[in-house]
Amino acid sequence: MTETILSSATREVVIGFDRPFVMIGERINPTGRKLLAQEMKDGDFSRVEADAIAQVEAGAHMLDVNAGIPLADEPALMARAIKLVQSVTDVPLSIDSSIIEALEAGIEVYEGKPLINSVTGEDEVLERVLPLVAKAGAAVVAISNDETGISEDPDVRFAVAKRIVERAADYGIPASDVVVDPLVMPIGAMGTAGQQVFALVRRLRDELHVNTTCGASNVSFGLPNRHAVTGTFLSMAIGAGMTSAIMNPMHAEVKTAVTAADVLAGHDLNCASWIASFRDPNATGAGGRRGRGGRRRAAPG
Amino acid sequence: MTETILSSATREVVIGFDRPFVMIGERINPTGRKLLAQEMKDGDFSRVEADAIAQVEAGAHMLDVNAGIPLADEPALMARAIKLVQSVTDVPLSIDSSIIEALEAGIEVYEGKPLINSVTGEDEVLERVLPLVAKAGAAVVAISNDETGISEDPDVRFAVAKRIVERAADYGIPASDVVVDPLVMPIGAMGTAGQQVFALVRRLRDELHVNTTCGASNVSFGLPNRHAVTGTFLSMAIGAGMTSAIMNPMHAEVKTAVTAADVLAGHDLNCASWIASFRDPNATGAGGRRGRGGRRRAAPG
Repeated sequence: MTETILSSATREVVIGFDRPFVMIGERINPTGRKLLAQEMKDGDFSRVEADAIAQVEAGAHMLDVNAGIPLADEPALMARAIKLVQSVTDVPLSIDSSIIEALEAGIEVYEGKPLINSVTGEDEVLERVLPLVAKAGAAVVAISNDETGISEDPDVRFAVAKRIVERAADYGIPASDVVVDPLVMPIGAMGTAGQQVFALVRRLRDELHVNTTCGASNVSFGLPNRHAVTGTFLSMAIGAGMTSAIMNPMHAEVKTAVTAADVLAGHDLNCASWIASFRDPNATGAGGRRGRGGRRRAAPG
Repeated sequence: MTETILSSATREVVIGFDRPFVMIGERINPTGRKLLAQEMKDGDFSRVEADAIAQVEAGAHMLDVNAGIPLADEPALMARAIKLVQSVTDVPLSIDSSIIEALEAGIEVYEGKPLINSVTGEDEVLERVLPLVAKAGAAVVAISNDETGISEDPDVRFAVAKRIVERAADYGIPASDVVVDPLVMPIGAMGTAGQQVFALVRRLRDELHVNTTCGASNVSFGLPNRHAVTGTFLSMAIGAGMTSAIMNPMHAEVKTAVTAADVLAGHDLNCASWIASFRDPNATGAGGRRGRGGRRRAAPG
C-alpha cells in the first residue's frame, strides 16, 4: 500500500491507499480570479492569507499555491506566497507552476517536503523538473500527457504515466513520491470523461501502485449545479481508488461527498469523523428509543 | 450488455449496463411505517395511492409494493395494493413479499411483466418461488444469502448468486431476468459494508453478467445526515456497475447523486437530463458571456 509523505516544518500529511482522501485546497490560484491576480500583482496578499486560513478551517489537508499571472514576476510572487502561507498555516503545500524558475523559487523558501505541481510526459519538461524534485527530496505530480497531447484513450495515458514513473526512478525519485494526475476533462464537453478517469485510476493503483490526484473542479465546468457534479465525481473517483484531489473544501456539498465516500470506502473507523461532523447535539443518547432489538431488514430511510 | 425488461400494461422499463440507473421507489412498505400499516390493515389505502403518485412524480422509474403486516391477510392486501397502484400509475412494479401466497396474489392481478422481490439461495425458497417466476414470465430479485446466512465474504455471496442464476436457468428463467441484490449492510455497523458491495457488484457484472439492485437506505441506518451517505453510496455503486436500486427518489440529495452519477458514468447523452433538471431559466444563452475562447485549464470551481 503506497504512501506519499508531504510535510511542512511542523506537520506531516500522508496520501495513501488505505487512508482518508487528502483534500488539497485549490483557491490560491489567480487563473480565472481577476481580482486576486490584480491584488497579487499590486503586492496585496491579504486575500492569499485569508484564503489559506479559510480553506484549512474548512478541512483542507494541504494547500495548492499558484502565482501564475501574465506579465508579472512569477518567481518572486511564488516565493512570497509560499512564505506567507507557511507563516499562517502548518499544512503541507503543493508548489504549482508551469515555469521552472517559479518552482525553484518556491522550493528555495519552502520549509518541509513539498509536492511539486507538476511534471508532464514531455521530455523537455521531465529533464528540467525531475532533477529539481530529486534535489529537493520532494514529491511530484505527474500529469498524464506528453508531446502528442492529451489522449482520450486511458490506456495511452497509463503508458505516459508509467514512463514518467520510470524516468523519475532514473533520478532516484521513488514511485511513492510520484502522484499521478489522470487528467479530468469536463464531462459536459466529453461524455466519456468520467469513465476514462475511473478506469485509469484503477490501473494506476493496481498496476503502477501510485497515489493519484486531479483538478476536480474541471469535471463540472460549464454545467449547472456544478458542486453536485464535482462532489459525485470525487466519490466515484474514491470508489475507483483515487487518493487525493485539488478541490474546494469550502463547497460543503463537495466536502460532504468526499467525507461520505471515506466512510463507504472503509477509511473512517467507526464512522467517527462522520458522526463528529453531523451528529445532532440535541439528540437522545445512542441507546435512545431505537434499542428495540434487531430487525432483519432496516426500515426504509 | 444485459438488459432486464419490466413492464406494466402500457409502459416498459429496461434495467441495463449502459442505461441510466433505474430508481425503484421504496415507500409503499409498511415495515417501519406504523401509520401506513394500521391504515392498510383498516382498509384505508389512500396513503398507498398518494405515495405511488408522489414517488413517480419525483422520478421513480418503478415502484416496489410491499404489504407485509403481522396478523393481516397479506395476500389480499397485496392484491389490492397492486391493483390500486396500477390504476394510478403506469410504471412497472416490484411485487415484494416473503410469503409465497402474497407473491401469487400479486402476480394474479398484475398486468404486464413484474419484478418479483425476492428469492434467496435457500433451496426451499428457490423451489417455491422460481416456478412462480417462470410461469409468470417475470423477472426476479435474487438475494445473495442462503441457509448459512449472510456471508461477510463477497466471494461467498458471489457463489450464492451464481447458484441462484444456475437454478433459475433450470426453470427456463434467463440470466437477464435475474437481478441480483448483493446485500447492503449498514456502514455504521460494518465498516467493510461498502467495499463488500462494490467488489461484489463488479464481479456480478463482469463475470455473471447480471443486473443488480439493492435496498439502498440500509447503508445509512443509524447515522446522522443519512441522505448524504445513501446518495454517495449509490453514486459509488453506480461507479462499480450497479444498475438499479430500491430507494426514495423524494430525497432530493439522493436523487441528485444518482442523476449526477448517470452523467459521470456516461449514461446521460450530452448531459441533457442534468441540464434539464438544473439549468437556470434566467441565465443568458449558452453562448452568453462565457464565449471568450478556450482556456487550457478550467478555472477553479
